Amino acid sequence: MIIIGEKINATRKSIAAAIEARDADAIVAVATAQVAAGADYLDLNGGDPNPAAEVENMKWLVELVQAHTDAPLSLDSANPDAIRAGLELAKAKPIVNSVSLEPDRLAAFLPILAAGECMVVALLMSEAGMPTGVDDRLQRARELIGRLTGAGKAMEEIIVDPCFLPVSATPGSGRDVCRAIAAIKAEFPEVHVGGGLSNVSFGLPQRKLVNLAMVAAAVYSGMDTALIDPSTPMMVPLILATEVVSGADEWCANYVAAYREGKLE
Amino acid sequence: MIIIGEKINATRKSIAAAIEARDADAIVAVATAQVAAGADYLDLNGGDPNPAAEVENMKWLVELVQAHTDAPLSLDSANPDAIRAGLELAKAKPIVNSVSLEPDRLAAFLPILAAGECMVVALLMSEAGMPTGVDDRLQRARELIGRLTGAGKAMEEIIVDPCFLPVSATPGSGRDVCRAIAAIKAEFPEVHVGGGLSNVSFGLPQRKLVNLAMVAAAVYSGMDTALIDPSTPMMVPLILATEVVSGADEWCANYVAAYREGKLE
Repeated sequence: MIIIGEKINATRKSIAAAIEARDADAIVAVATAQVAAGADYLDLNGGDPNPAAEVENMKWLVELVQAHTDAPLSLDSANPDAIRAGLELAKAKPIVNSVSLEPDRLAAFLPILAAGECMVVALLMSEAGMPTGVDDRLQRARELIGRLTGAGKAMEEIIVDPCFLPVSATPGSGRDVCRAIAAIKAEFPEVHVGGGLSNVSFGLPQRKLVNLAMVAAAVYSGMDTALIDPSTPMMVPLILATEVVSGADEWCANYVAAYREGKLE
Repeated sequence: MIIIGEKINATRKSIAAAIEARDADAIVAVATAQVAAGADYLDLNGGDPNPAAEVENMKWLVELVQAHTDAPLSLDSANPDAIRAGLELAKAKPIVNSVSLEPDRLAAFLPILAAGECMVVALLMSEAGMPTGVDDRLQRARELIGRLTGAGKAMEEIIVDPCFLPVSATPGSGRDVCRAIAAIKAEFPEVHVGGGLSNVSFGLPQRKLVNLAMVAAAVYSGMDTALIDPSTPMMVPLILATEVVSGADEWCANYVAAYREGKLE
């Protein structure tokens, strides 16, 4: 399982304020806490209505976080200039988060991805909007994987994000996204599949509970990458236990190692 | 989801001692706590090396528990006389736990099941032992369902127990049992599927965590009956949340109702 820590994101008010004020301590505290909780990568989103400010935010975040942790980065922006700036500064091979089938985004990102040493989140959004059902997701995945491999990315550098949608608004979408994960992994075993899933619980009480259930169902179905807050109680332990149940952790080796390291508490 | 509270079972030392001493208060305390935690049925197992003692234990347990709760019962024994005694005393339609494909057990139980007003757990054990893989489970389910419907049981009175096995000893068995659940539900939509699953975590640390992951994967796959300790932290809430994700709770109605009743804490 690749765990991408989601918390350094300017859509969160405290992070936006810390970025605005160039409050290094606040950002470093979140970064180190996420790594301690099990993040393999740290997502960095310095989104700003002003594109030039977003580029500066990305540069500041990349240099700051790299100075205080060894975790590789997930450069999170729809702004190609911010991605390019992040790629120039990244020390370890980062993830670009994200490309999609939307024509403008695809046209802007493909040359960057072709030139850079990086992994990439391939979000199944298109001109037509969000994907619906299983077949639509699989068809979009085929198309986007084709475009990315055509631009030189290796299968194992691609992380297909199947688009997790609120289950309260779209009944059956939780099941559909899991079936799509299984279908994509069956057809493209080397591709990674996963993404951010906290939207799933939108509009429901006890959202973290629904998110835990979604994670378990998705990991059971073959999800191998998760954009989450690893410090959420039960989240990382439940992922590791579900990999035991699914057989992804075939001899329970990761699970037992995590137990020995005190990570299942 | 049908939740069968598993705790009144003489394989547990404290329960065996309470039965032996006819300590009514101890049994009633466990019974009422399980109902409060969400048990729809209460499993009663008064197992004893002496068959006549087991019959007396079953009678005592049935009368005692019925005097203190309204929950219907799951009569848990391989001893046909104990089952027969329990059926005679049961007020609400009980579950008989369990028949299997083992010839002696099947021959002894079929007439009892044909005569009695009851549901029945159909355990996929046979002369050949435990089931292996998906196809073997599906084939055994077909055979046992055929025998039970032939004896007059309705599809919706049958609860197929797919046999949950320790994942540490049989890698892939967690995935296989989930796929078997899905296959059985696809072929027999009116049949219930589920059972006791705490064996799954045998030999592993933090067993309750693995059991939670197994429950989530199984409920996602279509399990609709669970023989569990409903007072296990997170257990019932995670089941309800997984039914939201799987679409079994299509409009989140059960989940929201459980929240309003304070059952998701």
